[in-house]
Amino acid sequence: MNSSELKAACLEVKKASQVLGSLSESKKNEVLGAVHDALLKESDFILAENAKDMERAESVFHLSSSMKERLNLTEKRIVSIAEGVRQVMTLPDPSGRTISDRTLPNGLEIVKTSVHFGTIAMIYESRPNVTVDAAVLCLKSGNACILRGGKEAHFTNAALTQVIQKALVSCNVPKQAVFSILDPSHELVNELLHLRGIIDLVIPRGGHRLIQTVVSNSSVPVIETGSGVCHTYVDKEADLDKAVRIIVNAKVQRPSVCNAMETLLIHKDVADAAVKKVFPELEAYGVEIRGDERICSLWPHAIPAVEADWSTEYGDLILSVRVVDSLEEAINHISRYSTHHSECIVTENKKNARLFVNAIDAACVYVNASTRFTDGFEFGFGAEIGISTQKLHVRGPMGLEALVTCKYKIFGDGQVRG
Amino acid sequence: MNSSELKAACLEVKKASQVLGSLSESKKNEVLGAVHDALLKESDFILAENAKDMERAESVFHLSSSMKERLNLTEKRIVSIAEGVRQVMTLPDPSGRTISDRTLPNGLEIVKTSVHFGTIAMIYESRPNVTVDAAVLCLKSGNACILRGGKEAHFTNAALTQVIQKALVSCNVPKQAVFSILDPSHELVNELLHLRGIIDLVIPRGGHRLIQTVVSNSSVPVIETGSGVCHTYVDKEADLDKAVRIIVNAKVQRPSVCNAMETLLIHKDVADAAVKKVFPELEAYGVEIRGDERICSLWPHAIPAVEADWSTEYGDLILSVRVVDSLEEAINHISRYSTHHSECIVTENKKNARLFVNAIDAACVYVNASTRFTDGFEFGFGAEIGISTQKLHVRGPMGLEALVTCKYKIFGDGQVRG
Repeated sequence: MNSSELKAACLEVKKASQVLGSLSESKKNEVLGAVHDALLKESDFILAENAKDMERAESVFHLSSSMKERLNLTEKRIVSIAEGVRQVMTLPDPSGRTISDRTLPNGLEIVKTSVHFGTIAMIYESRPNVTVDAAVLCLKSGNACILRGGKEAHFTNAALTQVIQKALVSCNVPKQAVFSILDPSHELVNELLHLRGIIDLVIPRGGHRLIQTVVSNSSVPVIETGSGVCHTYVDKEADLDKAVRIIVNAKVQRPSVCNAMETLLIHKDVADAAVKKVFPELEAYGVEIRGDERICSLWPHAIPAVEADWSTEYGDLILSVRVVDSLEEAINHISRYSTHHSECIVTENKKNARLFVNAIDAACVYVNASTRFTDGFEFGFGAEIGISTQKLHVRGPMGLEALVTCKYKIFGDGQVRG
Repeated sequence: MNSSELKAACLEVKKASQVLGSLSESKKNEVLGAVHDALLKESDFILAENAKDMERAESVFHLSSSMKERLNLTEKRIVSIAEGVRQVMTLPDPSGRTISDRTLPNGLEIVKTSVHFGTIAMIYESRPNVTVDAAVLCLKSGNACILRGGKEAHFTNAALTQVIQKALVSCNVPKQAVFSILDPSHELVNELLHLRGIIDLVIPRGGHRLIQTVVSNSSVPVIETGSGVCHTYVDKEADLDKAVRIIVNAKVQRPSVCNAMETLLIHKDVADAAVKKVFPELEAYGVEIRGDERICSLWPHAIPAVEADWSTEYGDLILSVRVVDSLEEAINHISRYSTHHSECIVTENKKNARLFVNAIDAACVYVNASTRFTDGFEFGFGAEIGISTQKLHVRGPMGLEALVTCKYKIFGDGQVRG
């Protein structure tokens, strides 16, 4: 696929987005129902294509076992993906809502309405379930989508797109409403990021490098997602039992995800007690501790942390730990190294809690709870298309609401400006 | 100023933004009151500095008389700028509001709160009143700002910034909360646009070229403002008297601004009657008509339009006019050439009106009213920092609300994720 073919294809998607924007909620649910049924009906085909990717996973792409695990589809996973589609059917349509309706003294009625963005491009890595998730969340919110998955999932993504497109056509919706770029060229992604005016929004999902490439190169508006160097600060007035529960959960329950804790800060007055309580538990889970000088003197197993540790998202059973002299020092450390995702203070002191939540510049700031809760489903959104770490448009877990913008409809009777 | 000096200065602004984010509404109003008083007290100084710019306006910069008019300050203009500051004092603080407050079944309380962005950079052209407007709107919403005005207004902007900074200091607020880049180097702007992480938001205000340069080059999130190729479509079922009023107002009342009409589309069934009614009025105001073939045959004074006319924002007493065969053709024309700012249909047919407002992809879509109403003050926002033509975060006129983002504050009692 060359640059002008890409542009032509994206213009077709844009055209399809106009159709999608005019569909009623029940029609959109009919489409999602057809996608749900098609996934189940065509599961043999999908599994066969996924098997081709699995074949190449080791021989061609040398994927790690955890990456292979993410790529692999089973009958059960397809059922679960289809179940996800059914859940999106039950969510309210975020578009077409009246946000405000005012009549000015001159008689002009100004109606602010939520509307679809139009065309959304999603750039992501290996997990093929994102292909279906992204497509159905876009469809439900009236958006056409351009999907660019990882080359490791080439056959699976092609199959899933084909199945979704068949379902669209069966409902008389243009199949271009869901379009996958299967050509693995990186050049094409760069072209895509400059189709401002054709593509309304780009959402990258994946590792830090992918996200930074998109953020730095795109002239299409981007929602930055995901990177999380999340901190937990154990205050002088912390309940240490709560601290242990929160720390272990935030680090251990699923270390590979963006809302897992990477750095622990402990107030000096409770450092000794906290270390003795929490480190044995962490070590029982196999967590490697990288500590500053004071931590290393309190806990001989700890590896001395280097500067890079404070800004590293390990995504693994590794934790950097530092002792701070004050709440203020904790806030300063976080302000310096935070990726503005999720940060936590453990304290029984309400004033310190208030100071912390106000001062910390992050999407989600927790008092006495695990950062692992930063998630669209946990927040009750019923779906999640990513976690925004930027401040424009949407912050934190992104549900369907993140996929709409607004429009002012103004009704007059010949009014002119004086 | 070199690149590392710029970065150091912006880091100081970022530090000041943390102070601003913690100020109460009454403290912010105290600051604005001090700015108001200082502008009046120091008006002689400001006028003297403005005179230096006016001296260079012709000799060095060869400004047109309308540009000089924009640059020129008078005692009366300073009073009006100060009055604008007082008006912002009366507006409600957009930050610190609770947007939602829910308690999940697990006991976690999730409070979504509006908060300041942090540091906002504003890049604009010659009008020095923008310096004060931007500074006070940022201050009221708790944001520090980095201002980059036009080199033509160098002395005036320096003076205004100095006066504002003095007022800040008199209220014990760090003067770095309002910082002007006075070095005219274009390189510096480019550096500024890449200080992601230090600057939270860039808002360009000015001509098409300025805005496109910022949008294309910035890795800091941008709100695109301003360009307006605005259309008015006269439907087959239009009330032609209303059409004349609306067309004349949208074209003539202030042709240089972004919400003025640039292209008129007329349904073929009413083309003859509409042309006869509206063109003499437009010509009385000195409007030059550039028409398609059918218009030129109906109105011999018309100059034949060329392709470029349909995408040109004249900002002048020029109007491109085209006859269309249907509402659909009008929608297609607008979809192709719109800058997504403000579009209008004149019709008495409610179904056509509904079709038009739903199909047109623009910030403001009017039925039977002049596009000139797209304005923060007309919309009742009490202020305007620009008109967004993008879909992310804010669309249409931007008041104070556009200058805040949100944060989730989550209060727990030791909850962990299962």
